[in-house]
Amino acid sequence: MTERISDLLADISRHTAPGAGVSRLPFTQEHRAALDTIRGWMEKAGLTVTVDAAGTMIGRREGPPGAPVLLFGSHQDSVRNGGMFDGIMGVLLPVLALGELRDMALPFSVEVLAFADEEGVRFPTALIGPRSLAGNFDPASLELRDANGISIRQAMTDFGLDPDAIPQLDRRNRAIIGYVETHIEQGPVLEADDHPVGLVTSICGIERHRLTLCGEPGHAGTVPMALRADALAGAAEMIVAIERHARDTEGLIATVGQIAVGPNAVNVIPGNVEFSLEVRSPADELRRESAVRIIRTCAEIAKDRSLELTSDFTYEQGAQPCDGKLLAELEAATQAVHGQVPSLPSGATHDASAMSELCPMAMLFVRCRDGASHLPEEFASEADMEVARRTLSQLVRNLADKYG
Amino acid sequence: MTERISDLLADISRHTAPGAGVSRLPFTQEHRAALDTIRGWMEKAGLTVTVDAAGTMIGRREGPPGAPVLLFGSHQDSVRNGGMFDGIMGVLLPVLALGELRDMALPFSVEVLAFADEEGVRFPTALIGPRSLAGNFDPASLELRDANGISIRQAMTDFGLDPDAIPQLDRRNRAIIGYVETHIEQGPVLEADDHPVGLVTSICGIERHRLTLCGEPGHAGTVPMALRADALAGAAEMIVAIERHARDTEGLIATVGQIAVGPNAVNVIPGNVEFSLEVRSPADELRRESAVRIIRTCAEIAKDRSLELTSDFTYEQGAQPCDGKLLAELEAATQAVHGQVPSLPSGATHDASAMSELCPMAMLFVRCRDGASHLPEEFASEADMEVARRTLSQLVRNLADKYG
Repeated sequence: MTERISDLLADISRHTAPGAGVSRLPFTQEHRAALDTIRGWMEKAGLTVTVDAAGTMIGRREGPPGAPVLLFGSHQDSVRNGGMFDGIMGVLLPVLALGELRDMALPFSVEVLAFADEEGVRFPTALIGPRSLAGNFDPASLELRDANGISIRQAMTDFGLDPDAIPQLDRRNRAIIGYVETHIEQGPVLEADDHPVGLVTSICGIERHRLTLCGEPGHAGTVPMALRADALAGAAEMIVAIERHARDTEGLIATVGQIAVGPNAVNVIPGNVEFSLEVRSPADELRRESAVRIIRTCAEIAKDRSLELTSDFTYEQGAQPCDGKLLAELEAATQAVHGQVPSLPSGATHDASAMSELCPMAMLFVRCRDGASHLPEEFASEADMEVARRTLSQLVRNLADKYG
Repeated sequence: MTERISDLLADISRHTAPGAGVSRLPFTQEHRAALDTIRGWMEKAGLTVTVDAAGTMIGRREGPPGAPVLLFGSHQDSVRNGGMFDGIMGVLLPVLALGELRDMALPFSVEVLAFADEEGVRFPTALIGPRSLAGNFDPASLELRDANGISIRQAMTDFGLDPDAIPQLDRRNRAIIGYVETHIEQGPVLEADDHPVGLVTSICGIERHRLTLCGEPGHAGTVPMALRADALAGAAEMIVAIERHARDTEGLIATVGQIAVGPNAVNVIPGNVEFSLEVRSPADELRRESAVRIIRTCAEIAKDRSLELTSDFTYEQGAQPCDGKLLAELEAATQAVHGQVPSLPSGATHDASAMSELCPMAMLFVRCRDGASHLPEEFASEADMEVARRTLSQLVRNLADKYG
């Protein structure tokens, strides 16, 4: 009888730094212990296990000579005090799927990739593993340091890796069928719609702005309403307008997550406010146009209120659409296993974001409870994960028919 | 030739702790030096100078035996890095007015009061002087301490005062015509309407509330707009509604001056927000009803957004209406000196707030530039202060006719 997926995830979750939930940062003793467990999973599934120069553990099943490779994977690391599903579930499920198919001949090679660092919690960068495969790794980032002053180069070397060999990991000239990542949704959509899994259409693009408002600070008792230039009241009107714009625009989300007010006293009219604006969309053009329109609306509000508005564009990351053909294969597999499931964009970034620079990419989301993620409460049910596992088996079988 | 008011105020402004603007806290060496200057002003105006047990310097002109007393005054102290008009101008102007009238017989006594502590910057209480006269001083407050651990009792004793004699200052059984305070407006109304002075109708009542909103924190990428319970977006809608309510309600002002958001990160949907609500009005009933209505509106917004709202009533101070008869006398005096001037409420608290517990009270506001106050930039023009000085002289003359 097969082991329960939840039990296997609980087992590897013991490899964590102390504290609530799972804290497994890259190139630590917890990472090493987790790799031992993953190696066990992979060997049991008949895979040949190696660790590449970027710290990615690779479980490979060899196909016929010269055959292309089908890639699965996700990351072994967690945030601090995170959950036991984010990342690692996407390593385990394809391993189990391949274990189920170990006696079936396949016309291609298959690999499951357990990337070292997707969360970017320890170092001020992330995605070293997939970027290395995609030939996008910047060697200068090896000198970035963690909070204890240890560079990535040092941490990798201490872990037994050879970071100078990373450039040789570039797979851009290899035949790759595609990369499929399975991940918890980290949002509430599948739960709200009551579906065990969902098909990711695209990884959203992101842009961030910092908006600064200057008004007139003043005594909250002596300045009549009509003569005020209250920076917080202005910011409030903007935040409401930003939310309304995003609500009214299909495929757009916008968030004001951070705000600072000065002088921030009970009896003083706020003289200045700074707040963040983040806009995400699977459609880059829609995102850019919307941000322009949102900031224009804010400028009009500022003008009407005699406030001075400045906005700084602080960050941008383009959308990564999933590959249409690979997505269709994934859809066919979910159809066969479970039936119709919804399609949705991924609002968060994944290893798949970097892998999409290398090869066709698709993602399968698994429902999680209350949309909770990066928290000890993170939870996906055995039944839902089982649907995902069977979908991955089915996908391999379907592709075997196609390539056979 | 008389000295310019501005020069006299500039002269006493030298008695300040180091730093920008004026920093003159009660029972300090700067206070002592200022009292020496005030004594000089008062003696020059023919007043007899004493300092009472609460540290109030009193310049008195004795009327006929058994005659009632007319009181003028304001405070000698400033906030830290404040201006050279707030408070002290209201001590100087009546002294100059009485100096002008020193050869004229009056049918009442007159006093000018230079209170020690109105701003409440050094100790966590204020208005010791006027409260003592009104029989409202709480001896327990003598044990309150400043940031250096010095109690009010200690500071007063070191200043040469006998705080245990404060209860004897109670003037509730004396015949008092009224108390008239002259003060910069600390707001922009007179400047906007282009008037040198204004008649205060009432000192506004104040109430304060703390509103706390709990929503659902979440990943700013993965939670669609429709499934969010964004505490900051909710607070923003409330702040806009609070402002609208105050704008639409004659005689009401409302301010959200303080806000704190959690977790306050660019890429996290705000899960909780706490903000302050301050409501002021010259009409207590209007203020109380409005606050209830505002908080009810906030509760409706919270309900519509699946946010949990709690509100705490943190502070209340009733309105102090100016005395109708005394205000009419002050209006007649401004009419004679300058012509029609506007009436307006005082949004800020003054020594007059405490004095109104003792006797009829009226206030005259002097226009200040840009509504600036509690800042080094605080400014009132010589011409405007001159109108106020002449108004006070005229008031004394008019009252002399009436009481003569």
